[in-house]
Amino acid sequence: MDDNKAMVIFQPSGRRGEVPKGITIIEASRLLGVDIEALCGEKKVCGKCVVRIEEGHFEKYHMDSAMDHVSPWQEEEDKFINEERREKGFRLGCVAQVQGDILIFVPEESRAGKQVVSKAARDIHIDHNPAVRLYYVEVEKPTFHDPTGDFERICKGLEREYGLANLTIDIQALRALPVALREGNWSVTVSVWMEKEIIRVRPGKHEHAYGIAIDVGTTTVAGYFCDLTTMEVIDTVSLMNPQCKYGEDVMARITYHMTTPDGLQRMSDDIIEGLNDIIGQAIEGTHPPKKKVKKKKGEEGPDEWVEKPEEGKTYLRLTRDDVEDITIGFNTAMHHILLKLNPEFVGLAPFPPVIHHSMDIRARDLGIQTNPSSYIFVLPNEAGFVGADNVGVLIAEEPYKHEETQLIIDIGTNGELVLGNKHKLISSSCATGPALEGAQIAFGMRAAPGAIERIKIDPETREVDYKVIGRDAWRKFSEPKEMRAKGICGSGILDLLAELYRSAIVTKSGVFNKKGLKGHPRFRVNPDTKQSEFVLAWAEESSIDKDIVVTQKDVRQIQLGKGALYAGCKLMMKRMDLEKVDKVKIAGAFGTHVDREEALIMGLFPDCEIHKIESVGNAAGDGCRAALLNVRKRIEADWASRNVEYVELTVEPTFEQDFMEAMQLPHMKDEFPHLEGVVPDHILHQGPKGPKKPE
Amino acid sequence: MDDNKAMVIFQPSGRRGEVPKGITIIEASRLLGVDIEALCGEKKVCGKCVVRIEEGHFEKYHMDSAMDHVSPWQEEEDKFINEERREKGFRLGCVAQVQGDILIFVPEESRAGKQVVSKAARDIHIDHNPAVRLYYVEVEKPTFHDPTGDFERICKGLEREYGLANLTIDIQALRALPVALREGNWSVTVSVWMEKEIIRVRPGKHEHAYGIAIDVGTTTVAGYFCDLTTMEVIDTVSLMNPQCKYGEDVMARITYHMTTPDGLQRMSDDIIEGLNDIIGQAIEGTHPPKKKVKKKKGEEGPDEWVEKPEEGKTYLRLTRDDVEDITIGFNTAMHHILLKLNPEFVGLAPFPPVIHHSMDIRARDLGIQTNPSSYIFVLPNEAGFVGADNVGVLIAEEPYKHEETQLIIDIGTNGELVLGNKHKLISSSCATGPALEGAQIAFGMRAAPGAIERIKIDPETREVDYKVIGRDAWRKFSEPKEMRAKGICGSGILDLLAELYRSAIVTKSGVFNKKGLKGHPRFRVNPDTKQSEFVLAWAEESSIDKDIVVTQKDVRQIQLGKGALYAGCKLMMKRMDLEKVDKVKIAGAFGTHVDREEALIMGLFPDCEIHKIESVGNAAGDGCRAALLNVRKRIEADWASRNVEYVELTVEPTFEQDFMEAMQLPHMKDEFPHLEGVVPDHILHQGPKGPKKPE
Repeated sequence: MDDNKAMVIFQPSGRRGEVPKGITIIEASRLLGVDIEALCGEKKVCGKCVVRIEEGHFEKYHMDSAMDHVSPWQEEEDKFINEERREKGFRLGCVAQVQGDILIFVPEESRAGKQVVSKAARDIHIDHNPAVRLYYVEVEKPTFHDPTGDFERICKGLEREYGLANLTIDIQALRALPVALREGNWSVTVSVWMEKEIIRVRPGKHEHAYGIAIDVGTTTVAGYFCDLTTMEVIDTVSLMNPQCKYGEDVMARITYHMTTPDGLQRMSDDIIEGLNDIIGQAIEGTHPPKKKVKKKKGEEGPDEWVEKPEEGKTYLRLTRDDVEDITIGFNTAMHHILLKLNPEFVGLAPFPPVIHHSMDIRARDLGIQTNPSSYIFVLPNEAGFVGADNVGVLIAEEPYKHEETQLIIDIGTNGELVLGNKHKLISSSCATGPALEGAQIAFGMRAAPGAIERIKIDPETREVDYKVIGRDAWRKFSEPKEMRAKGICGSGILDLLAELYRSAIVTKSGVFNKKGLKGHPRFRVNPDTKQSEFVLAWAEESSIDKDIVVTQKDVRQIQLGKGALYAGCKLMMKRMDLEKVDKVKIAGAFGTHVDREEALIMGLFPDCEIHKIESVGNAAGDGCRAALLNVRKRIEADWASRNVEYVELTVEPTFEQDFMEAMQLPHMKDEFPHLEGVVPDHILHQGPKGPKKPE
Repeated sequence: MDDNKAMVIFQPSGRRGEVPKGITIIEASRLLGVDIEALCGEKKVCGKCVVRIEEGHFEKYHMDSAMDHVSPWQEEEDKFINEERREKGFRLGCVAQVQGDILIFVPEESRAGKQVVSKAARDIHIDHNPAVRLYYVEVEKPTFHDPTGDFERICKGLEREYGLANLTIDIQALRALPVALREGNWSVTVSVWMEKEIIRVRPGKHEHAYGIAIDVGTTTVAGYFCDLTTMEVIDTVSLMNPQCKYGEDVMARITYHMTTPDGLQRMSDDIIEGLNDIIGQAIEGTHPPKKKVKKKKGEEGPDEWVEKPEEGKTYLRLTRDDVEDITIGFNTAMHHILLKLNPEFVGLAPFPPVIHHSMDIRARDLGIQTNPSSYIFVLPNEAGFVGADNVGVLIAEEPYKHEETQLIIDIGTNGELVLGNKHKLISSSCATGPALEGAQIAFGMRAAPGAIERIKIDPETREVDYKVIGRDAWRKFSEPKEMRAKGICGSGILDLLAELYRSAIVTKSGVFNKKGLKGHPRFRVNPDTKQSEFVLAWAEESSIDKDIVVTQKDVRQIQLGKGALYAGCKLMMKRMDLEKVDKVKIAGAFGTHVDREEALIMGLFPDCEIHKIESVGNAAGDGCRAALLNVRKRIEADWASRNVEYVELTVEPTFEQDFMEAMQLPHMKDEFPHLEGVVPDHILHQGPKGPKKPE
């Protein structure tokens, strides 16, 4: 290797390559295509580009000490990195220079592509009946006349005061008991799980216990940190699923397991680490922020980090021990991978999961760092890929309690469908694929700053207006330079296909309307790929110095996704012998952003009155939270998972044909009466042979 | 430090010192007072002196590689140490020479003082009703019409075939399920714990499960390895309690916890490692022994170790996974220390334990290496120091089922007493101290080869006859050289005091009868200590080139032990308002060797007809085994622990006086009518002022 070059590897992306020695880590990241946040433009003032220099082995050579391979510490870094983190190898990416081979870890908060996740938990009604309850008890101290042991002593108190009988105690809680009893002068607060087992003993009186409901998506993980006593959501914390590096969708992850000897272990370890991060962030949020206090001249030693509480704010100052209950929901593949259950067979027809039932697993058995005696409630799986997350949707939306027929669509990387009412419920899954979330699209990206999230196309001029995440003003109210667009995210993609169709840029079969677009400045054939493409944002409006376009292939990908979803809905309605549904509920982060009108235009799901279409947000997460706060919801979850009939769509005889048909954009007035007035007549009534030229 | 000397530390004893470089490890061990087995007298032929050279830190200097500090490998060592163990640092102590500072671990099997523990488990009646049962089930494979998950599939089979409902499954067992089902072609054998939880799934049909009952004594740990299906005891494995290095008795261990920051953790880790050793040995015993196959000339590579099964013998070839259940009994302090429960308060009046109840603890939660889903059943504690081991004695002996009044004495480092019948049971503990087990006695030692285990003294000539462990012939039938006596063990000590008294060498108050012994060749005053002593074995009969003697101080120590025991028994009888008991049962390893007659002479316990005195062996271990094989015994154990009334003897107002009186040797004919004819009249009827000179 050239002496003037060094090998740099970025984790978790795994991108690697040789770079010239002496450039900064930020510069190296750009050369290797790794996104590191650098809000201040490398002026060393925003502190967003913190990375960790890791020791490690390269394929060929062993690194003695990673720290010799970067330039020395600079004063500017003191402002953003405290002593403790400095010792762990943290550096500012815009300051530290590459001086030798190095492995660099880019922490979640420094990744530029980080996802914007809707933070607020939805306000759904949940009865208060948590699995972990607190009981305060005072007992007599032992004497020669009553030398009964500590455990039996508090059990007697708990039975006398609260009628709790036959309690057991976890060994970890038992270890804390003798000292807690004496520290509390024979008064303790006991946390009891399911009225069965003591999982914590604290000296004196305490009135709050905490728990976290976690929704583990294929792409995003969201945790709702709750006070189990008041039911308040204290914080919502989210994270990219760290398994994304093994593949975007569930089949890719299952394949990774089948092709890599310790693949399952690795993926499981990564998501467990992710959950521990989420819990850590939730805990950190209950402490005041820390600020650095500079030493005065003459004073020795390193600068100190001191808590700077915000005025008038009180802090709970919780620890991991205070997290005493967890519920988790996920699709079946994520469920299996996290629990290290072989996911091979759930990926093979007839897709049997290893287990349907809910499980109570001791947190420590999974390496999840909470109160050591606490349990994790894992929601039950329905069938095939329709997992515990969909059970979460069920117990949050409760379609089985209503007379009206609901169609619940949870659009993620995998689409999950529920259809029915109090008399009958069926569920299914369809491979909507990653296109609807922005992946596998030329300029697709996650919902991050710079992503086009809304699009409008003028049907007459075919001029494009759009909005990007991170800027409130639409394009037509902005200077081109202000847009700094980067790509298109999920909600933008849904808008896109609907708008392309409404403005007759593509035909009902999804082909570019070449005739009608002839000479339009935004339409062209890419000289390299020979593909037709339509420009959404010009290079001058982008932050990547390129025109952002939608290609013919992109349109096909989106059609495949929407086709799978529409065909799925239709087949399920056929199964239930239904002409129409009373209500459509769209769940998922995707659902939060989706425009109901555009979804209808696109034919994402069968026709429905627009006011009967409802976005229910992260219903899977709401279900997890309901199970956290109300133990009856856990029983309901097991009941629901066993009483939903799972329909495997791909084996339906008409599936292929339905799917092909559903790839078309809607055009039949009688099939979509509610599009009247929404889509221009000349589009809605165009013949089967392609669109007429707009008049 | 002198360049010609090296610092050597022996573990686990912790003995250390400087030794001349160039001497063998055996020679160094002798200089530092460490016993290493060397049957062949360092002729390099017995292979008993295997030790492990450990890397480690000394207080002052860091050792780069321990192996540079011993002489190179010699060919003789190949015969006893295979490649694998060689790599772990094992060497022959009589070959390897000290060449620098070194830390040496002496494995249990190489320690010369290793204890001889009675191997056979006693034949007591136990009903067959184990906690872990095997169920074989065949299921249909999943289809699109029935894509039910694996767990629910076998649950349905288990309910249909065996009526087992509402089963749960441990996450570890669940992980094995999908592959086991497919490997077994949809037939599996399921291990179910307590008819509640699946803890193991194996492909195909299996008919045996295994478990181990472990009795953790303060000094000795014994494991009974059992077939849970046939109830057969496959092997009995024992070990010194590795905690002995922290102190001989329970109070010393509690003190170690209170004075050493991580003392509890260390002691717990050590005993857990001990249990893992015991389980490992039991497993190893089910495989054929391995023998080394020498390479022929010209062949390359190291010699191979090949299995050499004994002819006609079949081997179970079990693994740790096959150990699916464990029961453990111990005194309260050992219970607390093993479970890492603070033992401080059980050592302080009024001695409340942390818990009385039995516990089911997952083996993995304690770091015990068995089947990862298996449970450990920890027997319940009675009170104070009367722990789960005494509950083991209770459920083995079942005094609560009999009309006759039994006195059960479990003599260990701590004496535990039970008195009563089906109407009432009381228990207590007394600090018999380590003297009765051979500790704190000038020539006391454990029951190991060379220990005097039986003694007879001719009342006329006061000539001593004795028997040592490891030789069948008594002294009078042997040449002096053949005896190779080293010291006295527990059973020898009991004989000793009785014989000293019967032959009027000591008076009833335990003082040497100086007048009567005047001029006797075996009686003398030690010029160094100024103490009276009586020679039991002359230097020429010993393997240590010294006279083995009993000193005045020894007699006092033994009296203290026997006094505590006798006073305890008497006080308990007073409590129950009893003049005499119907039966005396002596439990414990000690009880196995004890001579009933000598025990009576000594006044170890109140008078009883000799044929009503029974030795019940390791009844605590039997109780653990009963709980292993019969789950009802676990319920009985909890019942018994709550229904025995614990009496704290030390707070009884007459305790001090009773104890002082009980230190005397028995002399009242009316108090010990059954001594008539056993003790010469002139002794039995001697006055209160000291013995008459023998006529």
